[in-house]
Amino acid sequence: MNATSAEPSLEREIVELARRAREAAREAARLGRRPKDAWLRRAAEKLEAAREEVLEANRRDLAAAAEKGVSGAMRARLDLAGGRWADMIAGLREVAALDDPVGEITRSWVRPNGLRVGRMRIPLGVIAIIYESRPNVTVDAAALCVKAGNAVILRGGSEAIHSNVALGAVLREAAREVGVPEDAVAVVPHTDRAAIDVLLRQDRYVDLVIPRGGPALIRKVNETSTIPVIKHDAGVCHVFLDASAEPEMAIAIVRDSKIRQMSVCNGLETLLVHRGAVRTALPHVLKALHEEGVEIRGCEETCAAFPDAVPADEADWSTEYLDKILAVRVVSDLDEAVAHIQRYGSDHTEVIVTSDYPSAQRFVREVNSSVVGVNCSTAFSDGQRLGLGAEIGISTSRLHAYGPMGLESLTTQKFVLYGEGQLRE
Amino acid sequence: MNATSAEPSLEREIVELARRAREAAREAARLGRRPKDAWLRRAAEKLEAAREEVLEANRRDLAAAAEKGVSGAMRARLDLAGGRWADMIAGLREVAALDDPVGEITRSWVRPNGLRVGRMRIPLGVIAIIYESRPNVTVDAAALCVKAGNAVILRGGSEAIHSNVALGAVLREAAREVGVPEDAVAVVPHTDRAAIDVLLRQDRYVDLVIPRGGPALIRKVNETSTIPVIKHDAGVCHVFLDASAEPEMAIAIVRDSKIRQMSVCNGLETLLVHRGAVRTALPHVLKALHEEGVEIRGCEETCAAFPDAVPADEADWSTEYLDKILAVRVVSDLDEAVAHIQRYGSDHTEVIVTSDYPSAQRFVREVNSSVVGVNCSTAFSDGQRLGLGAEIGISTSRLHAYGPMGLESLTTQKFVLYGEGQLRE
Repeated sequence: MNATSAEPSLEREIVELARRAREAAREAARLGRRPKDAWLRRAAEKLEAAREEVLEANRRDLAAAAEKGVSGAMRARLDLAGGRWADMIAGLREVAALDDPVGEITRSWVRPNGLRVGRMRIPLGVIAIIYESRPNVTVDAAALCVKAGNAVILRGGSEAIHSNVALGAVLREAAREVGVPEDAVAVVPHTDRAAIDVLLRQDRYVDLVIPRGGPALIRKVNETSTIPVIKHDAGVCHVFLDASAEPEMAIAIVRDSKIRQMSVCNGLETLLVHRGAVRTALPHVLKALHEEGVEIRGCEETCAAFPDAVPADEADWSTEYLDKILAVRVVSDLDEAVAHIQRYGSDHTEVIVTSDYPSAQRFVREVNSSVVGVNCSTAFSDGQRLGLGAEIGISTSRLHAYGPMGLESLTTQKFVLYGEGQLRE
Repeated sequence: MNATSAEPSLEREIVELARRAREAAREAARLGRRPKDAWLRRAAEKLEAAREEVLEANRRDLAAAAEKGVSGAMRARLDLAGGRWADMIAGLREVAALDDPVGEITRSWVRPNGLRVGRMRIPLGVIAIIYESRPNVTVDAAALCVKAGNAVILRGGSEAIHSNVALGAVLREAAREVGVPEDAVAVVPHTDRAAIDVLLRQDRYVDLVIPRGGPALIRKVNETSTIPVIKHDAGVCHVFLDASAEPEMAIAIVRDSKIRQMSVCNGLETLLVHRGAVRTALPHVLKALHEEGVEIRGCEETCAAFPDAVPADEADWSTEYLDKILAVRVVSDLDEAVAHIQRYGSDHTEVIVTSDYPSAQRFVREVNSSVVGVNCSTAFSDGQRLGLGAEIGISTSRLHAYGPMGLESLTTQKFVLYGEGQLRE
């Protein structure tokens, strides 16, 4: 923990990069909305102009990945060409259109002595993002962090190094051109893992680390970091069909939650079914899914009610499949459903389908996952869909930001006091 | 880091204590206001009834401390008798009178598809507090954490072990009597430091660690913990006298900020003075302090203007004296004042004294300490004085809670979605 294995020159370089990010963050915190939006628009223009260069760097990464025998799914995530390129550029312009959260007074009150107290949003400072092989995250994350007045240190997967360095260079150039400090965007130009270890100990300069990726990455960051961490962890999301669930609505919500997109953290993984719905809604729901090729892994009662189901084992209840598999369990009441979610869930997203008012109210009150819904798809657990604008991810840490994180969650709040000479004595 | 030096039996005990706190937290999260307030009032009554027993345990701690040659100041902090006892009991009843933050919908909006989205306050879960020798913190911290629907694990200084165990027993007994889970309040019954190391790695069960104490304790907790940490660090607080500062107000604010209480983190440590006030306000301000026995450590210009000052050295600008010493530096303008605060400050509390509107606005905008004030004493940086009710401390971490932390900062917010069958597709 205390000793890192980094070469002294690498260590010095990372420390210096963090120190410069801290200085840039101080400048960035004072910027009004106009220069920040100018940077976003300029970055979009410059990326359009530099398309061929950046895609050339991206092709080098793709070729190296193919040579190393990296999986097709991973190479697909690495690829910046096609729709992803256009989305990335459009994302910059969308962030420019969002309101600037910095400076907002969220509440204000007057004390009996006349002192006015307010809570004002300010940037967090320096944010480090550690992510895997999607190079478009480099642009998306930089856009949100800097729009909220922060500096950002980006460390993507080693397979994407050429893409990330090329994107970072364009973002920094755009910053220089519009008078935003270029060190507000720093791409770690090393694939050496020791660079991460050094970075994670710069609590003097860095205010927050967001790891985005698999459980091994998140565990490692959490173990090593002396900087506060907001985890973007797995989603083992549940839908609970209450006895009073309307069958048509149940089918539609379960389908949308499970099938719309298979590989996302807000997708449905375990369906809980009130015993009173086993003969009514359940067969229709499972039939609809099974016809679309979803494998049903059920408890005993589920298998009895739906012969195409295969028996689930204990591990199924806590598995994030991200695939065409659904675990299904019959419960005797809402208490048992809540207890199951607490025991096996991941604090991500849970939905009840019900026509019963007390059940809806109790579910909302008693389930403390980051997103709790009544009669809607789990797929709404998404910053864009909730109206937050673009999102930096979905936090399963309870501290600071819980659930989809938009621009606001990249800020903190200070107390501001307006007095006329008030003393305490 | 990965291996702890704790005996297996101690490790098992601490893990079990954390696990039970997690279960209690789930129950506590569902409690309405009534049982929580009943617990606070019952605890107050039972402490009154158990006064002699608890003070007997406290006397054992005091005697042991005297034998070990512990300093008088530390023994004073350890002593529960006298006014402190009454304050502690009154504190329980004051927390009972505060509104319950749990369940509050802080914002709510409707999406174009009719989905209603809200942000609802919920408890954080399990909070561990690691503090030094003040046993009254055991009661104060438990009251706030449980009122906000959390479970709390308390680990006070080893000198206070008998006092803390006795207080914890009364708090748990009161919980049992009113139907609050007794494991919502756990006092670690060991003085072995290995117990802390084990506790700090229970991120599976514990959501937040708050270290309260000296820099060595805070550093250690930050280095060791895999649980999110909110630091309550030192305060190197500044007052900036602008050129337009009204001399009478300047004297009063500097006096109140420095002299009212010497040993508190929101006390003034460095006075910054605009060159335009060196001949006007400054001599009066320094004379008033000097007459009260405050040693003035000044920059060259300060020493020239006020011959009783002694020369400050570089270390003075970042020292938290907590004593009758004040560092004083002349600056040429507001920019230089802000730069000084950013370089040497601790992100705690800073105040400008000015009659100039643009200076006031710029100071509030550009200084991003946790509390930034205009024309008021630094002593208002206090949860009670800002109207938050009792406080658990003052955070100098930017994440989650920045500045004085009241009940609300012991909660987080989940998203609640009320739909009528909305799908994403």
